[in-house]
Amino acid sequence: MNDVNSQSKSKLVFPVLKNDRFIRALLRQPVDTTPVWMMRQAGRYLPEYKATRRQAGDFLSLCKNTELACEVTLQPLRRFALDAAILFSDILTVPDAMGLGLYFEEGEGPKFRKTVRTEADITALPKIDPNDSLDYVMRAVTAIRSALGGSVPLIGFSGSPWTLATYMVEGGSSREFRHTKEMLYRSPELLHALLDKLAVAVTDYLNAQILAGAQVVQIFDSWGGALAHREYVEFSLNYMKKIISGLIREQDGHRVPVIVFTKGGGQWIPQMIDSGADALGLDWTTSLADARQIAAGQVSLQGNLDPNTLYGSPAQIRKSVAAMLADAYAQDSSQTGYVANLGHGITQWVDPTHAGVFVDAVHELSQPYFK
Amino acid sequence: MNDVNSQSKSKLVFPVLKNDRFIRALLRQPVDTTPVWMMRQAGRYLPEYKATRRQAGDFLSLCKNTELACEVTLQPLRRFALDAAILFSDILTVPDAMGLGLYFEEGEGPKFRKTVRTEADITALPKIDPNDSLDYVMRAVTAIRSALGGSVPLIGFSGSPWTLATYMVEGGSSREFRHTKEMLYRSPELLHALLDKLAVAVTDYLNAQILAGAQVVQIFDSWGGALAHREYVEFSLNYMKKIISGLIREQDGHRVPVIVFTKGGGQWIPQMIDSGADALGLDWTTSLADARQIAAGQVSLQGNLDPNTLYGSPAQIRKSVAAMLADAYAQDSSQTGYVANLGHGITQWVDPTHAGVFVDAVHELSQPYFK
Repeated sequence: MNDVNSQSKSKLVFPVLKNDRFIRALLRQPVDTTPVWMMRQAGRYLPEYKATRRQAGDFLSLCKNTELACEVTLQPLRRFALDAAILFSDILTVPDAMGLGLYFEEGEGPKFRKTVRTEADITALPKIDPNDSLDYVMRAVTAIRSALGGSVPLIGFSGSPWTLATYMVEGGSSREFRHTKEMLYRSPELLHALLDKLAVAVTDYLNAQILAGAQVVQIFDSWGGALAHREYVEFSLNYMKKIISGLIREQDGHRVPVIVFTKGGGQWIPQMIDSGADALGLDWTTSLADARQIAAGQVSLQGNLDPNTLYGSPAQIRKSVAAMLADAYAQDSSQTGYVANLGHGITQWVDPTHAGVFVDAVHELSQPYFK
Repeated sequence: MNDVNSQSKSKLVFPVLKNDRFIRALLRQPVDTTPVWMMRQAGRYLPEYKATRRQAGDFLSLCKNTELACEVTLQPLRRFALDAAILFSDILTVPDAMGLGLYFEEGEGPKFRKTVRTEADITALPKIDPNDSLDYVMRAVTAIRSALGGSVPLIGFSGSPWTLATYMVEGGSSREFRHTKEMLYRSPELLHALLDKLAVAVTDYLNAQILAGAQVVQIFDSWGGALAHREYVEFSLNYMKKIISGLIREQDGHRVPVIVFTKGGGQWIPQMIDSGADALGLDWTTSLADARQIAAGQVSLQGNLDPNTLYGSPAQIRKSVAAMLADAYAQDSSQTGYVANLGHGITQWVDPTHAGVFVDAVHELSQPYFK
């Protein structure tokens, strides 16, 4: 069944990509200007998103409705000159497909009906076939890729094993990660067993997205920054490495770049350089100038404006973008290997016109670096 | 009034300090073994603390009751061979004294009845006299210092201006700091006005604690790590510098060391070295070996075991302490300038005997470094 799907997916034919600036920057190839996209660019700051979401009913129904997921993915691209689209979905689809029962309560984070805390819980987690239980994601990927018509590349994504594990063990969001940390320090072998299962599932999931049409994949390690420095390598980075080594890296004759984004991971760039990722996402706490020096052209970097910068005036936003670009290109005479982005998802309280100021400022203010 | 209090306070006579290992390490003077204390060492993981708190009624009543605040401060010292005591109080006493109405709801973080979001709100904040509205803190400091009988030094503390501002603007704890960041990016001059007032208040507050008997002071910049790298310097570090430059640095012939602890600030050690602080606290995400190399003997370091490590077995705790000590002394042949601690407060779910394992392991396993 998996083989048949894979074969049929591999026969998908999509329009030729016109704007490949984002992919070229990820692969450290020359570009004409700085590519830019925004994490959570299809989101609640857009009135048209809120309207579509109301139409879908709730967030998960929106993710599972191919037509509407495609629609919200395209909405920010109609407003802004973004250089990439990102699949509209959630980082927690994999544990949901494993039967944990993902749900959202208004005003609170995601929750699971079941938690995973014992050896029996981990053993009971089924192996998932992404073309079966996550078929709605693959349908959305293919529909979006087709609808994009080659205008910009499509990013697929997943949560990292560590990040997924925190939600599965805690049963939702957490500040202290009490139960996950208890497992880590008390029964590390249990946590490793869970992370192993998740690494396999995420590898299959991302490969299915690539076969369905994703041209770039990003691994969101949203809670990697909660780990101690040694534990980050052992419990998060090593599993992302394992995933990356199992990914389809070329599809239809094109390299499929991989981005790893560990929020709060700015101190660990030296450890992440060897992850196999083409690019590392950075949050706003990290100096991009320092990061570029440490990365030394071995990986591309993506980021990292504080999303709250967009609360400021257009003039202040442009000033912040100018400073970010100056940092990005201070160390690198080749002027590539950099993708502008926010350091985390855009918030629901941002004025959409300010998001447009950000995107335009990146394109305009980066011009002098490409003369 | 203030003068009279200061004069009477300066005449306080306390017993001679017997164990000065903690102060010596902060000042980068030779020590015989690694000093250790634990953030939040007087806390809910101790059954005797919970009993005293029940007796007091609630958390704030406990802070304001001299006898009981003194009692809970001493409780962990009866159990463990700690090298310092820390005043039992809250980081938010200053805004409470400014009239914002601090209160705690069970299971939630601290909250304020009033928020501070406009110029009028900031202008209305009164100048506080710590010997008046915060007299309960000074009484606790003096009582604890006397009760310690010179066994170990007493640490006084305050929240940093930025950290206090986040609570005052948001009205409580926050994940996103929406309103504070709005003020920062939209009306930075307003935020500066607030931080200026807070810096004055915190300086007066810490000086009053020093005159009342605090031998070391720590500034808790709990939310500094939420700032972008440039904004950290402008909106948090610069105000801590201002405070430090206004502190009484010698009392009764003894240097009063200052510790700055910015949680999530591990990337900013180079910027913090010049803050005037004698020591920097680090959380568990930072490699102590790297940090010691960057600090290069210019400041002492304090930290930084993940508090959740204490969920592990005694053997695992000892292993983690050994690794931490190896990191701490890897770069420094003089074997000083380091204080062992957790990277954040001990959690309520830790078994007290495990806290004892941590403290004893530091003393025992550091011995080989002092031969």
